[in-house]
Amino acid sequence: MLVENPEGRNLVKIGVVGGTGYTGVELIRLLALHPKVELSLITSRGEAGTRVDNLFPNLRGAVDLHFEEPDLARLKACDLVFFATPNGIAMTQVPELLDAGVRVIDLAADFRLKSAETWAKWYGQPHACPHLLEEAVYGLPEINREAIRNSRLVANPGCYPTAVQLGLAPLLVNHLIDPARVIADVKSGVSGAGRGANVQTLLCETTESFKAYGVSGHRHHPEIRQGLEVMGGNPVGLTFVPHLVPMVRGIEATLYVEPCESFDPQAVFEAHYSEEPFVDVMPAGSLPETRTVKTTNLCRLALHRQPDSNHLIIVSVIDNLVKGAAGQAIQNMNLMLGFAEGEGLTAIAPLP
Amino acid sequence: MLVENPEGRNLVKIGVVGGTGYTGVELIRLLALHPKVELSLITSRGEAGTRVDNLFPNLRGAVDLHFEEPDLARLKACDLVFFATPNGIAMTQVPELLDAGVRVIDLAADFRLKSAETWAKWYGQPHACPHLLEEAVYGLPEINREAIRNSRLVANPGCYPTAVQLGLAPLLVNHLIDPARVIADVKSGVSGAGRGANVQTLLCETTESFKAYGVSGHRHHPEIRQGLEVMGGNPVGLTFVPHLVPMVRGIEATLYVEPCESFDPQAVFEAHYSEEPFVDVMPAGSLPETRTVKTTNLCRLALHRQPDSNHLIIVSVIDNLVKGAAGQAIQNMNLMLGFAEGEGLTAIAPLP
Amino acid sequence: MLVENPEGRNLVKIGVVGGTGYTGVELIRLLALHPKVELSLITSRGEAGTRVDNLFPNLRGAVDLHFEEPDLARLKACDLVFFATPNGIAMTQVPELLDAGVRVIDLAADFRLKSAETWAKWYGQPHACPHLLEEAVYGLPEINREAIRNSRLVANPGCYPTAVQLGLAPLLVNHLIDPARVIADVKSGVSGAGRGANVQTLLCETTESFKAYGVSGHRHHPEIRQGLEVMGGNPVGLTFVPHLVPMVRGIEATLYVEPCESFDPQAVFEAHYSEEPFVDVMPAGSLPETRTVKTTNLCRLALHRQPDSNHLIIVSVIDNLVKGAAGQAIQNMNLMLGFAEGEGLTAIAPLP
Amino acid sequence: MLVENPEGRNLVKIGVVGGTGYTGVELIRLLALHPKVELSLITSRGEAGTRVDNLFPNLRGAVDLHFEEPDLARLKACDLVFFATPNGIAMTQVPELLDAGVRVIDLAADFRLKSAETWAKWYGQPHACPHLLEEAVYGLPEINREAIRNSRLVANPGCYPTAVQLGLAPLLVNHLIDPARVIADVKSGVSGAGRGANVQTLLCETTESFKAYGVSGHRHHPEIRQGLEVMGGNPVGLTFVPHLVPMVRGIEATLYVEPCESFDPQAVFEAHYSEEPFVDVMPAGSLPETRTVKTTNLCRLALHRQPDSNHLIIVSVIDNLVKGAAGQAIQNMNLMLGFAEGEGLTAIAPLP
Repeated sequence: MLVENPEGRNLVKIGVVGGTGYTGVELIRLLALHPKVELSLITSRGEAGTRVDNLFPNLRGAVDLHFEEPDLARLKACDLVFFATPNGIAMTQVPELLDAGVRVIDLAADFRLKSAETWAKWYGQPHACPHLLEEAVYGLPEINREAIRNSRLVANPGCYPTAVQLGLAPLLVNHLIDPARVIADVKSGVSGAGRGANVQTLLCETTESFKAYGVSGHRHHPEIRQGLEVMGGNPVGLTFVPHLVPMVRGIEATLYVEPCESFDPQAVFEAHYSEEPFVDVMPAGSLPETRTVKTTNLCRLALHRQPDSNHLIIVSVIDNLVKGAAGQAIQNMNLMLGFAEGEGLTAIAPLP
Repeated sequence: MLVENPEGRNLVKIGVVGGTGYTGVELIRLLALHPKVELSLITSRGEAGTRVDNLFPNLRGAVDLHFEEPDLARLKACDLVFFATPNGIAMTQVPELLDAGVRVIDLAADFRLKSAETWAKWYGQPHACPHLLEEAVYGLPEINREAIRNSRLVANPGCYPTAVQLGLAPLLVNHLIDPARVIADVKSGVSGAGRGANVQTLLCETTESFKAYGVSGHRHHPEIRQGLEVMGGNPVGLTFVPHLVPMVRGIEATLYVEPCESFDPQAVFEAHYSEEPFVDVMPAGSLPETRTVKTTNLCRLALHRQPDSNHLIIVSVIDNLVKGAAGQAIQNMNLMLGFAEGEGLTAIAPLP
Repeated sequence: MLVENPEGRNLVKIGVVGGTGYTGVELIRLLALHPKVELSLITSRGEAGTRVDNLFPNLRGAVDLHFEEPDLARLKACDLVFFATPNGIAMTQVPELLDAGVRVIDLAADFRLKSAETWAKWYGQPHACPHLLEEAVYGLPEINREAIRNSRLVANPGCYPTAVQLGLAPLLVNHLIDPARVIADVKSGVSGAGRGANVQTLLCETTESFKAYGVSGHRHHPEIRQGLEVMGGNPVGLTFVPHLVPMVRGIEATLYVEPCESFDPQAVFEAHYSEEPFVDVMPAGSLPETRTVKTTNLCRLALHRQPDSNHLIIVSVIDNLVKGAAGQAIQNMNLMLGFAEGEGLTAIAPLP
Repeated sequence: MLVENPEGRNLVKIGVVGGTGYTGVELIRLLALHPKVELSLITSRGEAGTRVDNLFPNLRGAVDLHFEEPDLARLKACDLVFFATPNGIAMTQVPELLDAGVRVIDLAADFRLKSAETWAKWYGQPHACPHLLEEAVYGLPEINREAIRNSRLVANPGCYPTAVQLGLAPLLVNHLIDPARVIADVKSGVSGAGRGANVQTLLCETTESFKAYGVSGHRHHPEIRQGLEVMGGNPVGLTFVPHLVPMVRGIEATLYVEPCESFDPQAVFEAHYSEEPFVDVMPAGSLPETRTVKTTNLCRLALHRQPDSNHLIIVSVIDNLVKGAAGQAIQNMNLMLGFAEGEGLTAIAPLP
């Protein structure tokens, strides 16, 4: 299945379905920089025939492909296919690809929830292949690394869920906090809203302003709660408030929990994440800025207490398009294909 | 004491001590637009001799003054003096001005805390006139309107404290929430950090990034707690986390509290603030953006609940330089001088 | 025709056609603050029935109207009607309104060009009422003040044309430069592109980037050239390159011209604009920032020479939504209705 | 001189003098990603003893060094030393390093001008080693590639000079334009002003505004003119106006020239740059955005004409910190050390 490239290396053949959004272009950029894969085709119903670097001039000189009409036959010739499509698309095509022996990573939400009923409620349509929900592995390597290695279908986590779950895992796994009182005050750059033509995300509507949104119910709420409940084996009471930050990339989650016993959070987190290549527990007393993880696959964490307060405060930052989407998808691909986990993910955040 | 202006109106004479920061220039701008006052002098040790509109070209054509050396004799000839100085300056000059019959509004923190000991702890120096702390009225008109009318010394509240206290007052005054568990996740534009030459607030250090800061202890923490404890008459357990937003103006506070009984928050807030000219309780289901209050003296509030969560969520937005500083100072001045409370505060936020 | 308002003042009745764009909301904001007019109706086909302050929450408490279906009968009952519609709408309705004795200010481009043929070429459709092009007065008060006072139909200038023409008028009127070599390198904030749902003006597409656009031909090119040619009575060779600045409001024009004789530009400009309320010739050696005119109707100008260069450099800044659109429309309204020219235009730019 | 690294590769030893500014941190980031060099020491008088990744947390996990006191003995042990210091520092230390056989790339301006007199005039001090000015090679590889390969001292060009010279070289080298009338209207992100504590570059002073600056004389003016005059062998009349864009990275130069004969600019540029790895002549009709070169070493160019205008318009964009500083320095290092010219410069601009 491997092709021979000009330098004589064997390159894995990759397909990308739906590469015209921000997750898609970031995925293509990372794949173009990856030393062990070959980007075979990129499909887009709307842009079929357009040069990829015409839509995304940052790729000039790096990607010499046109968007193509989706074609299952051609996708079946790939070793691994990414779906960077709107929710509800992947679930209609994945079964046939799996049957053809193609591995799949879905960057949308189609396979993230285990309950088809919950999925239908939050995504407004019945699930097209509920039988795959159990098999699909939730692609958070820090939780599910071994399962990911062995899976043929990975559900790449949402951006908020990545930041929140990595910030809470050491506490829930070790049963150190009251699971009934978890507050996640999360903030995201505007790229999280996608590349659609939308008055709400115009520069003139979002810059120089700050707001909470989706307070009455956000699709990442059930995804986060599902993940947190698996960690500790208990029901979790989650209050989750997303906010829109006037910037392009970055998520910051400020998490408020109540410890149910006395412990040293810094030591707990450092021990839990000591072997993780993409989780950086900051030194005690410091606070991470989202810009320090921009374009990288890192999650940076810091722990804080305040005098006269019962709450433990965890701060978690990621780049929503990388560790929160395309980078994590590459990390999952590396695991699935037996590459070094960090292959192609060596970027250092530019500063400033 | 009143002067006759060309149109024959009597104008109150105003002095501004320390007008070179962002609070100062906003105060000068609002005073220049106020129909009933005359800006008599603006002092600045560092910029004495410089035309005000040379430092702040937005004031060209509106303010025809130079910064002057601080001169108590000239300040004593004013009817009312604002201090827009760094913390610790006003307390050295206020007693003499009060003795001369001048009314004072301090936009810094010198008179905000009732305890000289707490003040000394947080501001790193002993208080110069602790005997005035009791007399000084905390200038939040929605709480202390009558006391402000009758005071000669008003301590203008901090920006975060204004947004947080207005968001919690109806709940604490009516004993509707658990005072031991109050979380204030607050976010501010960069202008809150002032106009000093500082690497931390360069555009290149702050734009396109988001971070929490001051998590281990912020000077507004004791000010907020003092205010909240007065409201309900009970000790308050406050967790307070400020964040820096890559924008100039605006504060958003997302407040998490636990109701101790069942009630209709929308009705409680609407009743509580029904007569307030500068507090806007948004319709149920809506969420305020900071930009809708920019350059105005308004505080906009919204109330939200989430299914499966015990928390009540209150969102509060203000312009940190207006309702959080200079505008509230004008509101206090209007009360102290018997003007209509909204005089000179009629701006509508520009959008976009 | 005048109505009696509660305070007993006679208010002029104003209609706004098409108030859902950025020019529209800024016009409504300025009208709401104007002491001598009453906003009678605001029409919008797309938003009919929506409260105006629901679409634009900055207007909560200031504007108590709903958008209404366009209705010529109701518009005819107004004293003056503004069109803040896309190009090509006003020309279909203006004749009937003029016949009914209503005065009209069109903020779109329908009546800006004198040649119906040129208009058709640049705007892609035949002009609907070419007979009115001669009568329509080009609403740049610094050029056409008396004609505006006496007109019933004013074509409000474009934003770039306002900045460029004010920067060149003293030179062309006095025949001081080579008209064959005029370069206008102009830069605009994103609000100039309007409030339409458009991928190109998303925050993620425009922030943290800078680009030239429309270099091969921009609709403001013929408008500017027409204006410049009237000033000097000669053909003008104009090179005009617009750029997009990652900010909301503001236009800066850097103009390069070649003097054809020796003169003192500072003295020429100061003399030419000495009586103008909204043109501020900055002191020699200074340079204007767009933020100093934000929300104001001002144009600030500066003149510069470089050693070893033949060019005279003129820098001109305006707020594209105020002096470049809605503010200038109010200025024109004031002239047409006999109000003080600056009525309702007293804002001072907020800084920061 | 080469050291053996753990993987058995020979790594060249690199020193960086003055790594605390934006040019410095970008240089360190690029060196940390370069496969053939080893970062031996980074000096800083002000930050000696501080971990590099404490000042620049983006480098956590990538750079395990402390800033050290400048120590010529240790610098002499390096193969190549970069100076990322303020102007006037390198010239005091370079002679001794050259004598010790160390190669030097100066990212400041000390060796850019050939005339010591002109240097003294623009930089306000006498030059410390004028005898090296002739030897120093101006490090614009597209002009001086062979000389750079063979030099021991390279003067890395300024950011504006890089964008402007690359935009004009094909025209001047081929004598296609009037050299007496060259206009460069250039715009830069704020990072060009450096990381110093400075009120003028605070977020609150620069965001949401646009201005020209340095119009009466900018230090890059003589550098550009020197470069342009060498190209064509004729005196050049240059008008050069820099502007500040409210963004971090990026330079756009819009260049206006007058052709002295008829030719096809697109063909001229494509031919001239056909072999250049870091110059991308865009397809006819397109316009480059600065964001498409962010974090890359690319210069993108486009050519435009307007009807009824004599001017040829060239648009040139670079990342001021990469092709305009640290990236070009790496490119020069690669040439000097015999590496592939693009080694370590493979980044693709993130979008968005």
